[in-house]
Amino acid sequence: MLARMTSQPEHYGTIFDLWRKGAPTVWTDYVEHDFVRQLQDGSLSKANFIHYLTQDYLFLIHFSRAWALAVTKAETVEEMQLCAGTVNALIGEEINLHIRICAEAGIDKATLVKAHEATANLAYTRYVLDAGHSGDMVDLLAALAPCVMGYGEIGLRLSQSHHASTYADWITTYGGVDYQRVCKDVGKLIDGACQRRLGDDATISPRWEGLQQRFEMATRLEVGFWQMGLDG
Amino acid sequence: MLARMTSQPEHYGTIFDLWRKGAPTVWTDYVEHDFVRQLQDGSLSKANFIHYLTQDYLFLIHFSRAWALAVTKAETVEEMQLCAGTVNALIGEEINLHIRICAEAGIDKATLVKAHEATANLAYTRYVLDAGHSGDMVDLLAALAPCVMGYGEIGLRLSQSHHASTYADWITTYGGVDYQRVCKDVGKLIDGACQRRLGDDATISPRWEGLQQRFEMATRLEVGFWQMGLDG
Amino acid sequence: MLARMTSQPEHYGTIFDLWRKGAPTVWTDYVEHDFVRQLQDGSLSKANFIHYLTQDYLFLIHFSRAWALAVTKAETVEEMQLCAGTVNALIGEEINLHIRICAEAGIDKATLVKAHEATANLAYTRYVLDAGHSGDMVDLLAALAPCVMGYGEIGLRLSQSHHASTYADWITTYGGVDYQRVCKDVGKLIDGACQRRLGDDATISPRWEGLQQRFEMATRLEVGFWQMGLDG
Amino acid sequence: MLARMTSQPEHYGTIFDLWRKGAPTVWTDYVEHDFVRQLQDGSLSKANFIHYLTQDYLFLIHFSRAWALAVTKAETVEEMQLCAGTVNALIGEEINLHIRICAEAGIDKATLVKAHEATANLAYTRYVLDAGHSGDMVDLLAALAPCVMGYGEIGLRLSQSHHASTYADWITTYGGVDYQRVCKDVGKLIDGACQRRLGDDATISPRWEGLQQRFEMATRLEVGFWQMGLDG
Repeated sequence: MLARMTSQPEHYGTIFDLWRKGAPTVWTDYVEHDFVRQLQDGSLSKANFIHYLTQDYLFLIHFSRAWALAVTKAETVEEMQLCAGTVNALIGEEINLHIRICAEAGIDKATLVKAHEATANLAYTRYVLDAGHSGDMVDLLAALAPCVMGYGEIGLRLSQSHHASTYADWITTYGGVDYQRVCKDVGKLIDGACQRRLGDDATISPRWEGLQQRFEMATRLEVGFWQMGLDG
Repeated sequence: MLARMTSQPEHYGTIFDLWRKGAPTVWTDYVEHDFVRQLQDGSLSKANFIHYLTQDYLFLIHFSRAWALAVTKAETVEEMQLCAGTVNALIGEEINLHIRICAEAGIDKATLVKAHEATANLAYTRYVLDAGHSGDMVDLLAALAPCVMGYGEIGLRLSQSHHASTYADWITTYGGVDYQRVCKDVGKLIDGACQRRLGDDATISPRWEGLQQRFEMATRLEVGFWQMGLDG
Repeated sequence: MLARMTSQPEHYGTIFDLWRKGAPTVWTDYVEHDFVRQLQDGSLSKANFIHYLTQDYLFLIHFSRAWALAVTKAETVEEMQLCAGTVNALIGEEINLHIRICAEAGIDKATLVKAHEATANLAYTRYVLDAGHSGDMVDLLAALAPCVMGYGEIGLRLSQSHHASTYADWITTYGGVDYQRVCKDVGKLIDGACQRRLGDDATISPRWEGLQQRFEMATRLEVGFWQMGLDG
Repeated sequence: MLARMTSQPEHYGTIFDLWRKGAPTVWTDYVEHDFVRQLQDGSLSKANFIHYLTQDYLFLIHFSRAWALAVTKAETVEEMQLCAGTVNALIGEEINLHIRICAEAGIDKATLVKAHEATANLAYTRYVLDAGHSGDMVDLLAALAPCVMGYGEIGLRLSQSHHASTYADWITTYGGVDYQRVCKDVGKLIDGACQRRLGDDATISPRWEGLQQRFEMATRLEVGFWQMGLDG
């Protein structure tokens, strides 16, 4: 029997916790999506996983661009350094992992590069980029958070639960110490960025509702991404 | 004798008043600059005026771009409409005034277009654009305000004081009803945008100091622009 | 019997013609979509039309932002003026038409503003905005063209064919002289912008294929928008 | 006697060579500026050097932002990786060098962060950022090149010539193998980016003149930066 999924999640930061609690239904739709259940019990078809990985390769390119945009919108050298480190981790390392796994599954890099970007994928990354262009650093961070933290939460929960070996690599990556460290660093970045721009109690800022909505929209787009993975 | 310049300025908006009062020295350096005094008493050389107008033509192009950027960062249709109207007023109308006046002074449009952009000019407009790209709508508005409102304040003061006829056209344009209307509309835009993002008392927002600094920097760059006009 | 839809379309510009011919299948999917057929014969349900109009209201907001972005990326005053005029036409006028028609259908402005943005809608507008942010003016224009010109082509064809009176207002708007003028102006803007950046024969530029792909992707997203209208 | 400065410079790339040769006067004004001569013979006052370093600290922040913007405008993963690596090298490493050297000279980090940004400094970095926002990747690269390559050329020439020990650290940094490697990598990035967008012979592209002008303007702003260093 699978572990209950509603166990207490890891604490990645004060603001993130508030955003997460502020969007309970869609957050659960995201972190307990059928795609996630099938990753856990190994029932996800290889074809669906490869389809997902291919789209996630394209996703990573634009998600890296969004983190690079964050470098241009940071207000302190420390914020810049953390965002720049994230860009490098994504485009310098994580993307190579995707290329390698896809290669093992018989999809070479040329095929990856030419893959057609699914609408659910395109909608998500361009929404995040536009959050940055239309707003400021915290608008962008609210749109970046669901992907970073959600993968951390899912990875940790699955790695601590019974799971099939089929997708253990994926689970170990996001449940592992390195990725959990990233989530906590990003959580601190968000807390600092909000404190600096919205004050000690961000929830009384007139921007709070809008930020909560951005977080929720990005989470909804994550649900759409999993669904695209299942729909093939 | 010229009217004292320290008379009570027109009220263009609550936030603008606060920003203006928060940067008293540099604001006075701007609105009482020697270039302004020479516009008033007519002692400004024609060569300097034409040099200024030529640079102001290039300024208007990039200032229009900055107002267009504001359209992309607005949060309500009303904000968008006001910014879009301003872009149109600048690039659709005011720029033609510059082309006409320069033509009367013997500078044709081809010459205008090829004019070398002075560093003081470039620094100013690119700073304003970057305020928009790096921040949100109110960051951009804080950088846009000194030019819009300062010209209104100068124009109104000079039009209500004794002034030589030499540059009466310039004085009448910015002191006139239409331009004063623009200043008040922009003042309202700023008040609304700040209220929506910083709350009812913007001065207690942690962003207030940064916004005040942006306003002050843009005002300082206006002083540099006048000085460039005098230095020819 | 409805007029055949494959009649020779209006000429809106040299580059547009090339782009259109370069994406024949998806272009036909767009301009001959079932939604269009139902607009013509009046079989489109009122509910679907209102759903479409509501989403199109949100679309117009972001499409206006994209045209405003074009102002910031233009290279000549003439390019800026045309783009600024388009922003004003969209956000200053066309959007009021939507508000009025929706009001007549019982949807007040407050409801419009709060409408949930469909993924197909969001994907399209953010893709266009990102085309501008990631590339230059012609990248942006290639993504803007399908909406502007496609509505012109559809409107003209339907207005010149037998059509039911139900959606005659819509047909008359886009088939009318004013909107056809817009399409030709935008066509000239595109031709000039490409000539200035890609040379006299844009098709031999190494960027041509990429621009064609942008045009095709934006057209595909238009198809998705119609489908969203039907799916309600 | 100092080595003649007109010796053959290092080859950093084909396009860079063309840009450099296309702006001979201003390029010489830059790489043979009095500030550079005084760095070489050690006659530069400590006060001027510290003033320069302080401004260069602020410069690096915005220059890193411009390289991060390049990540968002890249077209291939390889372009992204190289730009992301550059951001990290600048904001993750080079900036710490500045903090350390300034600390040794008695300027702590708090002072650095609060330093007033000189207009010549502001003009330069914001011009580069706007080159990226208004144009595409190659527009941005043309504005980024003079700083990267010019420091490489100066560093290499001084390191290979007789020079006083006073500023040997600076000379060794930019004349050293690591920095020369950066220059060659950036040279290749520029060659590839231009080849992909302008074709095999970039000089016959209608954009060539505009790119040459961007390069020249950025070089002129470098001259202004040295002069600011001397003017204190």
